[in-house]
Amino acid sequence: MHFRTVAIIGRHQDTGLDAPLRRLAQALRAEGCTVLVEAATSHNTGVAEFTVCTYKEIGEQADLAIVMGGDGTMLGAARELANSRVPLIGINHGRLGFITDIPVHSAVDALSSVLHGQYEAEERVLLEGRVMRGDKVMYSGVALNDVVINRAGRGGMIELHIELDGQFMHSQRADGLIIATPTGSTAYALSANGPILHPSLNAILLVPVAPQTLSNRPIVLPDSGTLSATITSLSRVESGASVHFDMQTWSECQAGDRIDVRRSRNAIRFLHPTGYSFFSTLRRKLHWNRMPQPSDDIE
Amino acid sequence: MHFRTVAIIGRHQDTGLDAPLRRLAQALRAEGCTVLVEAATSHNTGVAEFTVCTYKEIGEQADLAIVMGGDGTMLGAARELANSRVPLIGINHGRLGFITDIPVHSAVDALSSVLHGQYEAEERVLLEGRVMRGDKVMYSGVALNDVVINRAGRGGMIELHIELDGQFMHSQRADGLIIATPTGSTAYALSANGPILHPSLNAILLVPVAPQTLSNRPIVLPDSGTLSATITSLSRVESGASVHFDMQTWSECQAGDRIDVRRSRNAIRFLHPTGYSFFSTLRRKLHWNRMPQPSDDIE
Amino acid sequence: MHFRTVAIIGRHQDTGLDAPLRRLAQALRAEGCTVLVEAATSHNTGVAEFTVCTYKEIGEQADLAIVMGGDGTMLGAARELANSRVPLIGINHGRLGFITDIPVHSAVDALSSVLHGQYEAEERVLLEGRVMRGDKVMYSGVALNDVVINRAGRGGMIELHIELDGQFMHSQRADGLIIATPTGSTAYALSANGPILHPSLNAILLVPVAPQTLSNRPIVLPDSGTLSATITSLSRVESGASVHFDMQTWSECQAGDRIDVRRSRNAIRFLHPTGYSFFSTLRRKLHWNRMPQPSDDIE
Amino acid sequence: MHFRTVAIIGRHQDTGLDAPLRRLAQALRAEGCTVLVEAATSHNTGVAEFTVCTYKEIGEQADLAIVMGGDGTMLGAARELANSRVPLIGINHGRLGFITDIPVHSAVDALSSVLHGQYEAEERVLLEGRVMRGDKVMYSGVALNDVVINRAGRGGMIELHIELDGQFMHSQRADGLIIATPTGSTAYALSANGPILHPSLNAILLVPVAPQTLSNRPIVLPDSGTLSATITSLSRVESGASVHFDMQTWSECQAGDRIDVRRSRNAIRFLHPTGYSFFSTLRRKLHWNRMPQPSDDIE
Repeated sequence: MHFRTVAIIGRHQDTGLDAPLRRLAQALRAEGCTVLVEAATSHNTGVAEFTVCTYKEIGEQADLAIVMGGDGTMLGAARELANSRVPLIGINHGRLGFITDIPVHSAVDALSSVLHGQYEAEERVLLEGRVMRGDKVMYSGVALNDVVINRAGRGGMIELHIELDGQFMHSQRADGLIIATPTGSTAYALSANGPILHPSLNAILLVPVAPQTLSNRPIVLPDSGTLSATITSLSRVESGASVHFDMQTWSECQAGDRIDVRRSRNAIRFLHPTGYSFFSTLRRKLHWNRMPQPSDDIE
Repeated sequence: MHFRTVAIIGRHQDTGLDAPLRRLAQALRAEGCTVLVEAATSHNTGVAEFTVCTYKEIGEQADLAIVMGGDGTMLGAARELANSRVPLIGINHGRLGFITDIPVHSAVDALSSVLHGQYEAEERVLLEGRVMRGDKVMYSGVALNDVVINRAGRGGMIELHIELDGQFMHSQRADGLIIATPTGSTAYALSANGPILHPSLNAILLVPVAPQTLSNRPIVLPDSGTLSATITSLSRVESGASVHFDMQTWSECQAGDRIDVRRSRNAIRFLHPTGYSFFSTLRRKLHWNRMPQPSDDIE
Repeated sequence: MHFRTVAIIGRHQDTGLDAPLRRLAQALRAEGCTVLVEAATSHNTGVAEFTVCTYKEIGEQADLAIVMGGDGTMLGAARELANSRVPLIGINHGRLGFITDIPVHSAVDALSSVLHGQYEAEERVLLEGRVMRGDKVMYSGVALNDVVINRAGRGGMIELHIELDGQFMHSQRADGLIIATPTGSTAYALSANGPILHPSLNAILLVPVAPQTLSNRPIVLPDSGTLSATITSLSRVESGASVHFDMQTWSECQAGDRIDVRRSRNAIRFLHPTGYSFFSTLRRKLHWNRMPQPSDDIE
Repeated sequence: MHFRTVAIIGRHQDTGLDAPLRRLAQALRAEGCTVLVEAATSHNTGVAEFTVCTYKEIGEQADLAIVMGGDGTMLGAARELANSRVPLIGINHGRLGFITDIPVHSAVDALSSVLHGQYEAEERVLLEGRVMRGDKVMYSGVALNDVVINRAGRGGMIELHIELDGQFMHSQRADGLIIATPTGSTAYALSANGPILHPSLNAILLVPVAPQTLSNRPIVLPDSGTLSATITSLSRVESGASVHFDMQTWSECQAGDRIDVRRSRNAIRFLHPTGYSFFSTLRRKLHWNRMPQPSDDIE
């Protein structure tokens, strides 16, 4: 058995998660695993017959964490477990899952194989970001997908002065700026016309949202440096700006603030059933490069 | 004399507008014109020695309205005067002016030529938009550039169901949707990767902002129909959505609201000194297609 | 009966076209129509039991022309019949058909409805282009989709000086330039990142292929003017350039040549079975805006 | 003295290169260097008073090679010297130089500083590509910018089946495919809408030219694998396809051929005067992110 203690984390808002979660937990127990269920997940699903744990306890005790839900659930769990070394595996429950790649109907079989060593592991880089006001750290956060700097209010734009390791890159007026990991390149950055980055790259991607220059382009940087974006002006001072981490947590900020972003020392370890293909996921989930077929005639 | 009564409208926030405004007003008077100054403009600049008028009075009395400022000033004036038939001419004061195309230093000469008939006129289409909640009109507004439907809050996305004259076009999840006139095609729509539309086209442009499909593309429609976008869902109900007119006025809206947009019966008439070229403005102001030169070596 | 004499034109290269073509011709005859079969179509399919005609004769005698094949077949037929006023209707045979929108399996039923007046007609604009060398017309052609100016050889680029009605627009270094009708906006222009134009627009679309400026953008122009593109230089003189009409016919050209393009006086009339929707075709055939679905999990 | 033997390589086609080349060579000799001049350069400029050498001899004897011309000259020299370890430094002579970054007027001063150790070095990755027909290598080449697979003829398209290390990525119908190094990301790939890659990334960039799917996007891959693109079909068999290396050398190919591309074991070493900034070059030479200024009013 490769993993003795296995935690399950589920999407809180989902109804109907209790049955597949219970089914999976029982199968894990039947395989001889100790099963932990994350506290809020247990509370929301009513699945209470297994050991209920906080994220902190999962980080300390689990050999594997199974995330059931969509990519948002995985992003939240990954940030919570960033400081532990617990590997994560994603089960897609009723959502478009790009990083939660195992369909719920084959979860029990897939997990059984994984428990017996039939898996592939990959490291995914995390970003850590800090909002600096002068010398003071106003906020700090971690992101698996992206750190996004936004004009906060209704309309207007944000002007940024962007440096890499203290070297001036460029100034930019835009709705916002997406600073993404390779994992995040297939999330919000892709909507803003960014390229796809293979998850194994040691790279950070910068994609502006609605930039006010025709000559803007996404840029891919090595992830060894520190990126700094200073808010030099806001078209509507009253509306302010904000910095988002995986579009899940955020901080207000204001003109003059500097946002520093760099690779976290911690990485996330994702497991996939043997045979996982990043490209297959791209084709299936994003319809990447799908060519229209004559059979598309019938709507 | 082609224009007897001439109104001047200025950018309210500008300091230093009083001197060029006074110079221009005196030159117009010397040419034999009756000069009106818009009330807020007079109040802000302290230029009080000419007849002070409301927008309504300008609409009734003026043969020509001169707008001094940037494109935002022009957008505001155009919406205020949409129901009158007063033609507009734009003087660029200290801003990037795309529709305010006369540099302030040549304003007196340019206006003198215009007064003597050396001008070209062009019609610019306006959009009118209404926010419908069931049968009730919650808000209505007019736009020279664009009607923009936005998620209002921090993060999240908006889902729209879009129809043209009651015929389903497509559904879209995105940060927002820009519905632009040809005039607006060189404003916010261009930042969101839209094409440039020649101002004489009878067309409406739809450009999504950060759409969640790889296969999205801007679409250009005839301006004879009514476009309806229904907000089918918001990823964060609490944050709501908003509809903006030229990014200057806006209305809150909520899931279930329908935004109807169509060409206004009124159009705006812009005057330009003889020799005006839309393409020249594109090249100068947007650096459209500017090729790097060997002389760019010296920064 | 709305159409007495009906011509059938088929894709020459197709094998297996004889059976559906014969089935359709017999159904038309059963409805009381006189059936003409285009000469090369008859020759290639061996369907010889109906009156065999040249395109010229079809143009003179037919009330309706049915095109069986893919979009390429339709483009060829449309150019052949541009000077006649014979309306066209497209049957999609084994190809991706964007303008040939009736699936072959429902052709007989669809045509029967059309013959009894259940159809919608729309006009599609054609372009006519001429290659000028000094005052001499070197070549002229007609296009339903696009006139494309290309570097002809292996590598290199082409530099163009582009004017609208004699007014300078811009210079461009690129692999090529696509000058498209609204019909052509969903063909090659779309591959080169152009916007979609509704077929009823009176517009011409310019889309560069791999332009050497970051600030390039597609531009939509009114179709009332004459566009002129002069080949100012070729990076590889020996390789030359070429001008293509619907990517089907072409002419060589060289540095100094000027290509003039304008709307043809003739338009093409397309018929569709009642209920045709341009937007539905966009969604089905191009997957325009298709959102990934949870069910996409199974490849 | 950091470099004793210095070779000079010049753009062959340039007229007027003799004077600055001679000036530079004399300055190098005055600094105590042995000066070599590449044979074709000597022949074309008539500068014969220094030791004339082949590329092979330069590779064996030189401690530094100075390239005078544009980026094309540098690409050629880099490929010739790929197997040696001679570092390269670029002087921009009358061209847009992105990798030849020293203006000719400051060449003597800049080189003097470099000779005295005031320089920064960076490694640039090279690609090596092979055209395979069955088991047979039909052609092999090296590229500093890109390997480009093209439909060769007039019109038509090429269909590719693309794998990374034997794992299927996607199929693609397009005008062509650009496989670029980070160095090449600011060359042809940028024209085809690719992102910018920092030169220090260990990455390969794939950018399609005019792809026939709306859902295509550039993709960035680690440079540790082998990319294989098999030509599965050509829309016009007679016209064939071709594979280009830095758009300078090429090979014909045909349907069924497979093009293998991977990072070369050899890398190129570029030297820059101290203070070189990649981002500054981006801003100056590509106008990357240049925002229009009010002063742009005067054309």
